[in-house]
Amino acid sequence: MNDPKPWLTLARVPGLHAGHLAGAGRDPLAWLEESDGALAQQGFGAAAISALRHPDPRALDSDEAWLAEPGHSLVTWGSADYPPLLAAIPDAPLVLFVDGSAAALSLPQLAMVGSRNPTQLGRETAEQFARHLAGAGLAITSGLALGIDAASHRGALQGGGWTVAVLGCGLDTVYPREHAALAQAVAAHGALVSDLPMGTPPLKHHFPRRNRIISGLSVGTLVVEAALQSGSLITARLAAEQGREVFAIPGSIHNPMARGCHRLIRQGAKLVETADDVFAELGALLRGLRAGMGSEAPDAQGVSGHVLDKDYEILLDALGFAPASIDSLVARTGFAADAVASMLLILELDGRVAQQPGGLFCRRLAGK
Amino acid sequence: MNDPKPWLTLARVPGLHAGHLAGAGRDPLAWLEESDGALAQQGFGAAAISALRHPDPRALDSDEAWLAEPGHSLVTWGSADYPPLLAAIPDAPLVLFVDGSAAALSLPQLAMVGSRNPTQLGRETAEQFARHLAGAGLAITSGLALGIDAASHRGALQGGGWTVAVLGCGLDTVYPREHAALAQAVAAHGALVSDLPMGTPPLKHHFPRRNRIISGLSVGTLVVEAALQSGSLITARLAAEQGREVFAIPGSIHNPMARGCHRLIRQGAKLVETADDVFAELGALLRGLRAGMGSEAPDAQGVSGHVLDKDYEILLDALGFAPASIDSLVARTGFAADAVASMLLILELDGRVAQQPGGLFCRRLAGK
Repeated sequence: MNDPKPWLTLARVPGLHAGHLAGAGRDPLAWLEESDGALAQQGFGAAAISALRHPDPRALDSDEAWLAEPGHSLVTWGSADYPPLLAAIPDAPLVLFVDGSAAALSLPQLAMVGSRNPTQLGRETAEQFARHLAGAGLAITSGLALGIDAASHRGALQGGGWTVAVLGCGLDTVYPREHAALAQAVAAHGALVSDLPMGTPPLKHHFPRRNRIISGLSVGTLVVEAALQSGSLITARLAAEQGREVFAIPGSIHNPMARGCHRLIRQGAKLVETADDVFAELGALLRGLRAGMGSEAPDAQGVSGHVLDKDYEILLDALGFAPASIDSLVARTGFAADAVASMLLILELDGRVAQQPGGLFCRRLAGK
Repeated sequence: MNDPKPWLTLARVPGLHAGHLAGAGRDPLAWLEESDGALAQQGFGAAAISALRHPDPRALDSDEAWLAEPGHSLVTWGSADYPPLLAAIPDAPLVLFVDGSAAALSLPQLAMVGSRNPTQLGRETAEQFARHLAGAGLAITSGLALGIDAASHRGALQGGGWTVAVLGCGLDTVYPREHAALAQAVAAHGALVSDLPMGTPPLKHHFPRRNRIISGLSVGTLVVEAALQSGSLITARLAAEQGREVFAIPGSIHNPMARGCHRLIRQGAKLVETADDVFAELGALLRGLRAGMGSEAPDAQGVSGHVLDKDYEILLDALGFAPASIDSLVARTGFAADAVASMLLILELDGRVAQQPGGLFCRRLAGK
């Protein structure tokens, strides 16, 4: 990319987000050229104007030093790799610091969140759901926290799938520390993400902000186990406000960690008992979101109706009848990896494609 | 009552119910006077006409002999003691054989049903809910079956409340046999009921028919634990079709006995975690049903609005500030027992009255 400094400057203006652009297509970098008066008219306070005018050079240096390391990148508002679902939320971040695959952020993904103190069974349930869903091609997004978050990332990794962790601190900090090894594995099979620049500590008020990114990246949010006071209920509320689906797993009325899920179900969240229940809902959902978002993956309307969109035909032809990896399909078709992954998922939901162990995909005969 | 024979004859016409009357206020006994042609025009088949013309005298004798025993009675369509909620269903029975208190059938009641093979925790949950709800003045109606049914009746008895058991056989048979003692206790603190005459065995196809009475007597049906194939789901479906509320208790996704409840919740049943959740829903429900049914208990609209209906004022005056039983309140006010019970329940839901151990009621100070 070009010089990241202007974007890193924007990243350090407290509270600034794409919602302040007030108009589609506006370039956030234009703020850097505007007069104080023009900025004030757009609602910039004195502190924000000062942050924009006089960025701390040492702070920007630390961000740049981090970005210079292998695997690290910056995804900026309006760029081709900015995740389309996240761009649709009203307070989308202007920049995302990424450790791992920036393309993973644009994969169809499900947020899985829940208690930091789940029951043993809740932890296993999260792992099983994530393993199954990630193995079937859905990326699993969570917050790297103790408990359900970690179990969800781990399950996705076990399933040989993609996983994304959104942090409430700068990516030069791993929080919680116990998850340093898990964070490395997530970066290697997906991405660690934050909109917070280097040196930002994991303060309590960063977490609702982090949660909006978790739900905003995802077609839906699944709450596995949560007490009534759990932060997961905030993520679920944000998902609902963002027009995304909310799923909750019920539990025994004698399990306090099921209370939050039961409240969500009463409020309209979809009750799910199995990973397949999630898939059953997601088929239509992915198509709807994709149609509305202008994602690279073609609209699959035609797939259900058994009239294949041309790109799907190309992909199925490339797939042939021997199992193939996403990488080899990318090479054969020239499509982007995330478009291939999306299309494979939709074909899988339609029963045209099956995933095999080792992340290989194969065609299924129609009607089977 | 007058000669029961004509009613007992109607009770033995297979499949006949109040829905066949085709017109409010029509007297079912009029069928006995009509010509074969007139009956055929109303849809009576040859077998039904024959059953009407030539009742088996020995069968009628056995019904009459049963009715002559202490505590036994016949409640007939259109009579003052026919339960108003049951009269509102489209296929209401023409007669009810009752062992115990016929007035108990008109009490505000909740159906509690579920698996014959529940988990130990499910059984305890049913007992706890029934104890709490019955102790607070709501009669508990169920089917005397093994498992959740029996636990619900037992809980109601432990709570010192009323309970009603509807059987899928004639009341000269106790089914299942293991529940002979429980049946006696139910008759002593509520009623055993059936629309089937003496000598009718507990055949499988009687149970959906029995279930419609369970749901029809009740303002709502609570399913405690049920597998996907459970007959309790039939009762829940009937309740919904009858315009009554359906409640279901969620459970662990690893408990197969929670599957039926989860399906109901997905279909719109209210998820309840505590007996108080049921009460929270029932306040409005009881008022609505009562207003629509023309029950003897006055509409409580005014109670919520703190403008007391005159009958409620009389009852509260009669109650004074020393605890009193329903019997003594009946004596003091001259109201019917079921009207007093209904009004006390509504006053309790409004926080004006509290129930004490031993089935005594006392006033609460306003605003407490």
